[in-house]
Amino acid sequence: MDVNQLLSDVAMATCLSEGSEGVRNVLRNVMKFQPIPLHELAKIVKIPVPVVSSVRKELEKRRILERKSGIILTEQGRLLVGSLGIKSGGPKKLDGGYKFPDWLIPLADNFEEIQRSRPEPNYKLDQSHCNSATAVLRAAYLYDCDALEGRNIVFIGDDDLTSLAICLLSIEYGLDTGNIIVLDIDDRLLDFVSQFAKSLDRTVKTEKYDFREGIPENIVNGNDVFFTDPPYTISGLRLFVSRGVEALDTGPGKMGFISFAGKSPSENLAAHEVFTEMGLAVQEVIPSFNNYIGAQVHAGSSSLIRCLTTHRTRSVSAMDITKIYTADRNII
Amino acid sequence: MDVNQLLSDVAMATCLSEGSEGVRNVLRNVMKFQPIPLHELAKIVKIPVPVVSSVRKELEKRRILERKSGIILTEQGRLLVGSLGIKSGGPKKLDGGYKFPDWLIPLADNFEEIQRSRPEPNYKLDQSHCNSATAVLRAAYLYDCDALEGRNIVFIGDDDLTSLAICLLSIEYGLDTGNIIVLDIDDRLLDFVSQFAKSLDRTVKTEKYDFREGIPENIVNGNDVFFTDPPYTISGLRLFVSRGVEALDTGPGKMGFISFAGKSPSENLAAHEVFTEMGLAVQEVIPSFNNYIGAQVHAGSSSLIRCLTTHRTRSVSAMDITKIYTADRNII
Repeated sequence: MDVNQLLSDVAMATCLSEGSEGVRNVLRNVMKFQPIPLHELAKIVKIPVPVVSSVRKELEKRRILERKSGIILTEQGRLLVGSLGIKSGGPKKLDGGYKFPDWLIPLADNFEEIQRSRPEPNYKLDQSHCNSATAVLRAAYLYDCDALEGRNIVFIGDDDLTSLAICLLSIEYGLDTGNIIVLDIDDRLLDFVSQFAKSLDRTVKTEKYDFREGIPENIVNGNDVFFTDPPYTISGLRLFVSRGVEALDTGPGKMGFISFAGKSPSENLAAHEVFTEMGLAVQEVIPSFNNYIGAQVHAGSSSLIRCLTTHRTRSVSAMDITKIYTADRNII
Repeated sequence: MDVNQLLSDVAMATCLSEGSEGVRNVLRNVMKFQPIPLHELAKIVKIPVPVVSSVRKELEKRRILERKSGIILTEQGRLLVGSLGIKSGGPKKLDGGYKFPDWLIPLADNFEEIQRSRPEPNYKLDQSHCNSATAVLRAAYLYDCDALEGRNIVFIGDDDLTSLAICLLSIEYGLDTGNIIVLDIDDRLLDFVSQFAKSLDRTVKTEKYDFREGIPENIVNGNDVFFTDPPYTISGLRLFVSRGVEALDTGPGKMGFISFAGKSPSENLAAHEVFTEMGLAVQEVIPSFNNYIGAQVHAGSSSLIRCLTTHRTRSVSAMDITKIYTADRNII
């Protein structure tokens, strides 16, 4: 059996946007960690569960994989994966990205409380909530990047309630931020955020805004930091990041934090073209920083991308604003 | 005293490419960690030691900083930094990036041995050696990214001897790589690498090449992975990455690993424009992954950037190849 042909056949049969490499990645991780449950495998290879499931089915049909309290390789499968140079065992997995530290646990517990009372996600708006660990780790990361103390911070959408996680961290450590402003299209969310902040004796300004219509005049140019977890389309990313840029003070060194996960290398390339087009300098890209509750999209995680403005930073004016949310794709 | 004016005055007086934000960054970290030695401060703020030193001098002149077994704030300095919203104390620093694991220590020790006998760096070629921890952590990271097993790997320059670190890891864990090829302009280095690999009973192919003249025909398109730590100029980056792309198989999902540290947000932006121009999709950017021996450039560290090829990946043909190394800047 020609192994490269097989990888490419399975990639084709499942329309896998990661191509042959994606199939190799699945097989490699079964070799290393078998027996492995489907969900764990999806998380490691960063491919959504239903997609990994259909790759598994194709590989079962071809008698490469089978199930035995988890996914395992058949005898033939082991030979085939071995012929790619891949062995079982090997060095341990590295500890990468940002570790969730013990001292953040009480804050995550408090955040969990907040989450219990918040409005349900509106999937039409591509809302899907990050988990409590992600929310408070975001706050701690912003602090590490000097994006909190004395900073005016604007959220271009905040259904994740990251603004409230910042309030919790600030209270715990006696930090003083500048203004925190949340712009969002969702009234329920805005009410919840401003009420909850008030109950914590903190101020989060909120303003209803559809980003397709620009951002409020009084917010333009007044901020040091923007944070956004935009809809999962390149047009959505482009629009939200552009509004973030408009909200920042001019001049270099202002900060943008963007959560995003391309469904393929091409989509990640398109995302980075958005950043370079706007003159944003990427400083750090942290895969799987963001983890979402129950999300099947992107295997439940996304990258956190940290940018700085430069002398060439500018928002983009003309853009396609008809296809912002993934739901819009079905309409058109 | 107008604090923003002061930050901007000091940035001007020291020609700081990070601008006011860079001065704030210095002051913030003195507030958090005082008394702090100059070298430690430089490492945290990621600005070269001589530059931080001149910022310190300017701030001493203005009676904001003073020295007392390390750099500290004066009474006036504390008030001033406080007026920026910055307090002493606060949350602990997060553990980010890739932790060096204990199980890599024996390999780092072995690599240290190799380093003792290698040729001295040629600074005209922007050679500056990464330390042993970086070299073996690179090898382990490549393994984590599935860039080793059965992969054909080409080094576009390898004065860091990362190819030998891969040999050490492969021996320790019984890994089989595909071909490992090192292309470099430096004969001494090529001899050393191929000899040492031989002494380890491994094969690293080496070929002398000036990347300004292209890469060998027999290497074009044959590889799954390229690795490069290019000269510290955008033209150098552009040339080396372009040669890396030429060495890769066509089709998406092939891997590029690039070490780079811009001296300013603008230079980082220019670097990412190189990647998007060539159709490389940035997957991960890890600040301070690479640490160099005795290097004053970039405060002794640089980012490791992981890219994947896409359907649109292509090398660039026309480029300015007269200013590849920083030394060339003085010639012209």
